Amino acid sequence: MAVQTRTGAATAIFATLRAWGVDRVFICPGSTEAAFLDASLDERDIELVATSDEAITVSMADGYARATGRPAVAYVHTHLGLANGLAHLSCAKLERSPVVVLTGLKAAALHGATAGFTTAPDTTGLARQFVKWAHESGTPETIGTDLAHALRVATTPPMGPAFLAVAQDRMEADADVPPGPGPHATPRLRPDPDAITAAAEVLAQAERPLVVAGAEIFRADAGEALDRLAERLGAPVVVEDRRTIERAETARLRTFTGVLDGREDADAILLAGARAPIRFEHHAPPVLPADVPTVHLTEDPRELALTGALPLLGDVRHALADLTAAVPAAQGRFRRAASGDEPDEAAVPIRVPALMRRLCAALEPGTWVIDDSVTSKAALLGPALAPEAGLRYLTTAGGSLGWGLGAALGVAEAGQRVVAVLGDGVFQFGIAGLWTAVSRALPVTFVVVNNQSYGAVKAALRRYDGEAVARDVYPVTSLAGPDIAAIARGFGAHGVRVERLEDLDGALVTRPGPTVIEVLTDPNDSGPLR
Amino acid sequence: MAVQTRTGAATAIFATLRAWGVDRVFICPGSTEAAFLDASLDERDIELVATSDEAITVSMADGYARATGRPAVAYVHTHLGLANGLAHLSCAKLERSPVVVLTGLKAAALHGATAGFTTAPDTTGLARQFVKWAHESGTPETIGTDLAHALRVATTPPMGPAFLAVAQDRMEADADVPPGPGPHATPRLRPDPDAITAAAEVLAQAERPLVVAGAEIFRADAGEALDRLAERLGAPVVVEDRRTIERAETARLRTFTGVLDGREDADAILLAGARAPIRFEHHAPPVLPADVPTVHLTEDPRELALTGALPLLGDVRHALADLTAAVPAAQGRFRRAASGDEPDEAAVPIRVPALMRRLCAALEPGTWVIDDSVTSKAALLGPALAPEAGLRYLTTAGGSLGWGLGAALGVAEAGQRVVAVLGDGVFQFGIAGLWTAVSRALPVTFVVVNNQSYGAVKAALRRYDGEAVARDVYPVTSLAGPDIAAIARGFGAHGVRVERLEDLDGALVTRPGPTVIEVLTDPNDSGPLR
Repeated sequence: MAVQTRTGAATAIFATLRAWGVDRVFICPGSTEAAFLDASLDERDIELVATSDEAITVSMADGYARATGRPAVAYVHTHLGLANGLAHLSCAKLERSPVVVLTGLKAAALHGATAGFTTAPDTTGLARQFVKWAHESGTPETIGTDLAHALRVATTPPMGPAFLAVAQDRMEADADVPPGPGPHATPRLRPDPDAITAAAEVLAQAERPLVVAGAEIFRADAGEALDRLAERLGAPVVVEDRRTIERAETARLRTFTGVLDGREDADAILLAGARAPIRFEHHAPPVLPADVPTVHLTEDPRELALTGALPLLGDVRHALADLTAAVPAAQGRFRRAASGDEPDEAAVPIRVPALMRRLCAALEPGTWVIDDSVTSKAALLGPALAPEAGLRYLTTAGGSLGWGLGAALGVAEAGQRVVAVLGDGVFQFGIAGLWTAVSRALPVTFVVVNNQSYGAVKAALRRYDGEAVARDVYPVTSLAGPDIAAIARGFGAHGVRVERLEDLDGALVTRPGPTVIEVLTDPNDSGPLR
Repeated sequence: MAVQTRTGAATAIFATLRAWGVDRVFICPGSTEAAFLDASLDERDIELVATSDEAITVSMADGYARATGRPAVAYVHTHLGLANGLAHLSCAKLERSPVVVLTGLKAAALHGATAGFTTAPDTTGLARQFVKWAHESGTPETIGTDLAHALRVATTPPMGPAFLAVAQDRMEADADVPPGPGPHATPRLRPDPDAITAAAEVLAQAERPLVVAGAEIFRADAGEALDRLAERLGAPVVVEDRRTIERAETARLRTFTGVLDGREDADAILLAGARAPIRFEHHAPPVLPADVPTVHLTEDPRELALTGALPLLGDVRHALADLTAAVPAAQGRFRRAASGDEPDEAAVPIRVPALMRRLCAALEPGTWVIDDSVTSKAALLGPALAPEAGLRYLTTAGGSLGWGLGAALGVAEAGQRVVAVLGDGVFQFGIAGLWTAVSRALPVTFVVVNNQSYGAVKAALRRYDGEAVARDVYPVTSLAGPDIAAIARGFGAHGVRVERLEDLDGALVTRPGPTVIEVLTDPNDSGPLR
């Protein structure tokens, strides 16, 4: 079948990826990828990273993209592979991660009647609500330029995923397929001066201004610029609230005081590179008080529409510098929130707050902490964000369980130090990632908080406060049974179970391959209800 | 929060399910299911079957529906849970399985701006192409009747999945929600007499007619009616080809001769309750010869449109009886195809054909064989369909890996004897199902054909016949590493590795809970290329 005499689509794809500096492709292949795999034998500078489940393909690409700031490509098979990766793709969309999903479709010749194997009426439509752009290449000749377009869409701020479907017959066609053009510099917008003036006016009038530092600040490494503005305003800095936060690196942030919880005493708020707060429950009050004047600085017009605050559209670095120049100097007040009670380190089963404090204290500065811990998140945030720990915190507000296992693999694949904190339910969703972790010998540590239950469902029943609470019976919340460390060993990872906190440090030794530390915690601890 | 004084939606859902004879709900819950879980404490006659991944929730419901012939309900959480179940849902659609997917959405009050946690622009739209009907209840009061409608849609021939989304605030509303009405008898259509006459004419004129028995025959338990027609026509019966087949029970089929492979010598074909053959590759010739007159009997108008054969629309039982009365008697020729070479039972690594023969010979008559074996399918079909084995064969033409693990759990949940044959890649896709298998102590046996590779991808590269074949290097096809039996033991299942065929029978002992038999086979065996 490989009778091509001309430069086919597979070669054009590799050339386009090379032009964009894409050095690896995360892939879970099927028969539709034969031409691409075959061509890879002559394209050794672009590595194919094998995964055994598309949920991992997508979340691993996402983690790689977020850790490197560069686009990452996930290549999956038909609508089935896309469907399996869709939940994590929705996280990449929410977190503005430049993931390009390539999907191989069965031959276009088989689509009309959809009586082909693994064909679907509209695979591209399936992707559409979770990407910025979704398209199926209609001819072999456009595949290279379509891929370049997908990469351009993904990396143009506000960044986010893009989707390209390529049918097998077009991929295998004997055609001259030109590669797509490479990238220009990323366009960045400086805010309108009038908008700066209006924002500065609001902030200057405040006596107790508050700055909420969002993911855009840390993506752009703009902590120093933020500190300068906050110090000039005399405004403490908090990071986004627990439901909204995507990432934070507080090590060098002089003005950091804690996590937004909506109870701050402020008479003006600057959302700085933050998105609109994400609401978890309709009963709960909005995270931001409606009656406090708020300025929203972001590069994402969609987020401005969501908050309805005074808009300051543009790149955070430009905006922070312009704002700093536009506001008068004030007195600062940067007291960090007290870290609460001393957690009990000797308790058995292990208490989650004690676990998180001990874990974060033991990690080397610069380590990424990937958070997919669900009900343990509230306890993890404090220690993970403590500036003296020097950690880099990364999570998703998308809520797709299992994301963290794959994302951690992507960070490790980028050569960066990483620990992932996972719930035991989460572990089951992401478990196939252990195969990739072992086969690539990725030195990632997974800390699985095993409370043997769906803590989030238990918490929801407690909030609901009905018969379950009255009878102290929580149906369909038990996850008891699996020996997580043993499962990890079955995959060839190092697996260890920790029942006493004093054994944690010994388990945290970095190894050449993956380590799974299963920590037994209290099944009744389902985190804070709010 | 549970301040309801009236009959809320959760109670109406249980009442509606009860009216339809639904005795269990397969569920992977989240916070949006709190009211439903809470109400379940007073609805003990409908069991909640906990799963730890929505791919299992859906495929387990599918297996239950197919084994019982009754509608089954899969309850998942938000667009994320739906997305995770979507690939298997597409199989249920293809196989006309009456699965009703209920999805809990975050409160409708949070949807407008889509800045709510785990909200998506259009969750209902995500389901649409894989169900017959997709809807979100717009008020609390309609939830019961909407659910009855979903069940009615799912069970009206041609059957298939339906989808209903229920937002959390509507689910929890203090409202009087009437239950939906129960079912009537399933409507069945007798074919038009003129169509019977036209079909009978085609078949009567043939000297070498061939009957292709499809899933509708076995779903309707119409084997005896088929035998009578085939004997009268003097036509051998084959089951649908390897890519198209969904199910077959050949034990009592007197006229059965083998599996359709497109090389039969026939001058007329009756597709009897079969669907349009599914095409795997665009290069390959159509499964049915274009120049042989073909009659297509089915209850599904969509399938008629796909084949373009002489249509005979209606229920197979009615149609077979009418046809039998309308054709003259002829001489039969019902020779079974030779089963090929004797497989080598002593070979190490174990040969797949020998494994399948030995396995099927060891199973008790009446056992369901769930096939999710991918490249081993060709070798499994013969022994699984041999009438003397008395087995019931069930698979999906949907190609969604991991389906078989969940489907087998559904069959076991229905109290029926079941063995699932899985590829090692498939095992990783469905692995979370082991948690449900163990927690419910389901006596299901999983035979994992571990060739330590993506055989299907290797086969595709061989068909492509390019550099991979020239260099004998098959990139991204290795799946080596996991100790599948050990992983199973980590979940609490009985896990055993078999390296010599003689050890298979001993491993096949039925136990109270699940058994995983990992069979090491040749990594170079990627099945037939066609």
